[in-house]
Amino acid sequence: MTEQLPPDVIAQLRALDPAVTPELAQSSWALLTPFHEKAGYTAPNIARDQAYGDHPRQRLDVHTGDDDQGGRPVFVFVHGGGFVRGDKHIPGAPQYDLVGAWAVRRGYVGVTITYRLAPEYQWPSGAEDVAKAVQWLRQNIAGYGGDPDKIVVAGNSAGAVHVASFAAGQGSGAGADPETIAGAALLSGIYEIGTPEAGSPEHVYYGPDPGPEVSSLPGLLEAPIPLLFSVAERDPRFFQEAAASLVRAWIARHAAMPDLVWVEGHNHMSTIGSLTVDEAALGTALARFVDRHTATEGTEGAA
Amino acid sequence: MTEQLPPDVIAQLRALDPAVTPELAQSSWALLTPFHEKAGYTAPNIARDQAYGDHPRQRLDVHTGDDDQGGRPVFVFVHGGGFVRGDKHIPGAPQYDLVGAWAVRRGYVGVTITYRLAPEYQWPSGAEDVAKAVQWLRQNIAGYGGDPDKIVVAGNSAGAVHVASFAAGQGSGAGADPETIAGAALLSGIYEIGTPEAGSPEHVYYGPDPGPEVSSLPGLLEAPIPLLFSVAERDPRFFQEAAASLVRAWIARHAAMPDLVWVEGHNHMSTIGSLTVDEAALGTALARFVDRHTATEGTEGAA
Repeated sequence: MTEQLPPDVIAQLRALDPAVTPELAQSSWALLTPFHEKAGYTAPNIARDQAYGDHPRQRLDVHTGDDDQGGRPVFVFVHGGGFVRGDKHIPGAPQYDLVGAWAVRRGYVGVTITYRLAPEYQWPSGAEDVAKAVQWLRQNIAGYGGDPDKIVVAGNSAGAVHVASFAAGQGSGAGADPETIAGAALLSGIYEIGTPEAGSPEHVYYGPDPGPEVSSLPGLLEAPIPLLFSVAERDPRFFQEAAASLVRAWIARHAAMPDLVWVEGHNHMSTIGSLTVDEAALGTALARFVDRHTATEGTEGAA
Repeated sequence: MTEQLPPDVIAQLRALDPAVTPELAQSSWALLTPFHEKAGYTAPNIARDQAYGDHPRQRLDVHTGDDDQGGRPVFVFVHGGGFVRGDKHIPGAPQYDLVGAWAVRRGYVGVTITYRLAPEYQWPSGAEDVAKAVQWLRQNIAGYGGDPDKIVVAGNSAGAVHVASFAAGQGSGAGADPETIAGAALLSGIYEIGTPEAGSPEHVYYGPDPGPEVSSLPGLLEAPIPLLFSVAERDPRFFQEAAASLVRAWIARHAAMPDLVWVEGHNHMSTIGSLTVDEAALGTALARFVDRHTATEGTEGAA
């Protein structure tokens, strides 16, 4: 946890055009990767491609440390990619083994999952895959030192949309409740779906004319599990508006602000890459969320 | 920075009635003080009661370390107290020497100020005193190892209102601009003043029928300096609404979310007491804000 991005690298990240493009991904990872290489982005053990379903995209990797201590919190990461692409693991690159390595450094079992993609699989396939992966973890994660009652699921971008959808109870899978997961972290997500523009990622995943039932916001406002949200300083306007809209709905429902992390200096692609190498941006808050909501001894009782 | 509040203490803090009362202050500090005593809440050197004006409340304490390195960022703290009470220093207690000690641990010069109080001194006396203190610091802080071009001013509760008022250019003092301060941190403040209820702190400071010119929000939206805001998880509804209202105005003006820290587990009184003993709550984000906006080498250029 000691590597820290120097200010000039943050400045370079901040100078990038925030539009969500392949160029942004390439430039962001070009800046971040050397620091992840220095810090190390692979956990001591990675059990690859455990099947949580029959489809070849229903796979997960389990990241663990070197000792055999059990009862650990389980940190699950669902990648982004505009509903149509992305993977849990790019060989030879920190995406997204770094999340597993971060989890292990923080004392958790790390899990990175992938899921079925649009256009072949549309809403609510993402929520159903998250539910299925969680079901697999509840049955199997103790064998890796994880506590099935301490699962926190995080998603980024489209991954956040799927986790939000799961947390809001969408899809035919069992919804999220305190019996299934201990919390959900939604990083740079969107929670309301209007009429998608032709060619947009939402158009591909939701179809041309989705109904109000695809929006996760109403369900999130009533979710029986703790939620953390984040928005990056350099997220494009679309995601800034989504965060502001969430705040508006949350204060109206709860008379309180949501647990929302403003990820300083980072963009839509670099947010998840801030883990380990720039803990002050997101990792500190994320670990605190996990620690608090997986604490034993009934410390939650006062909530 | 190694002391950390145990989860059960956070749980006890969260269980307190959030209403801003003397009982909340007493209970919060009773929980926090042992940890500050263990961590140490006094900087190696404290130059007490430097006069930045003629009034006996126009005084500041300068907190420094043991070496004579110069050019340090300067972290200024303006206490709360409902416009009518409060002090920079309660002898034998961590309020608010702990802020100076935190600043020194973070490599800054710490400054804690006090200011004139209502009802004798009304709006915009707070903004004028902050301006006057900053003027004094710009002239004198180099003698304590501080860089006058790296002053960040933070305020809590009524102190945040005064710092916001200063940052928004209210009062006859020179307003905040990049030539005077490098940034402002507004912790659990209010930025819009309606018609105050009789007996409320706002009634005492602003009078019974203040005009729209007393609200700092319009000025904050145009402030030429970086701003950080925070709201505590257990701030009362009044402050939650103020934060949500700020988000609404900020997104409308900037098409982006403000730099807003949600202070997990803490209340209106304990937020500032989280420094050093619970850095993940506020200190990490606050230090990052200070570091970024006082960085030399032109790393701000890319903003």
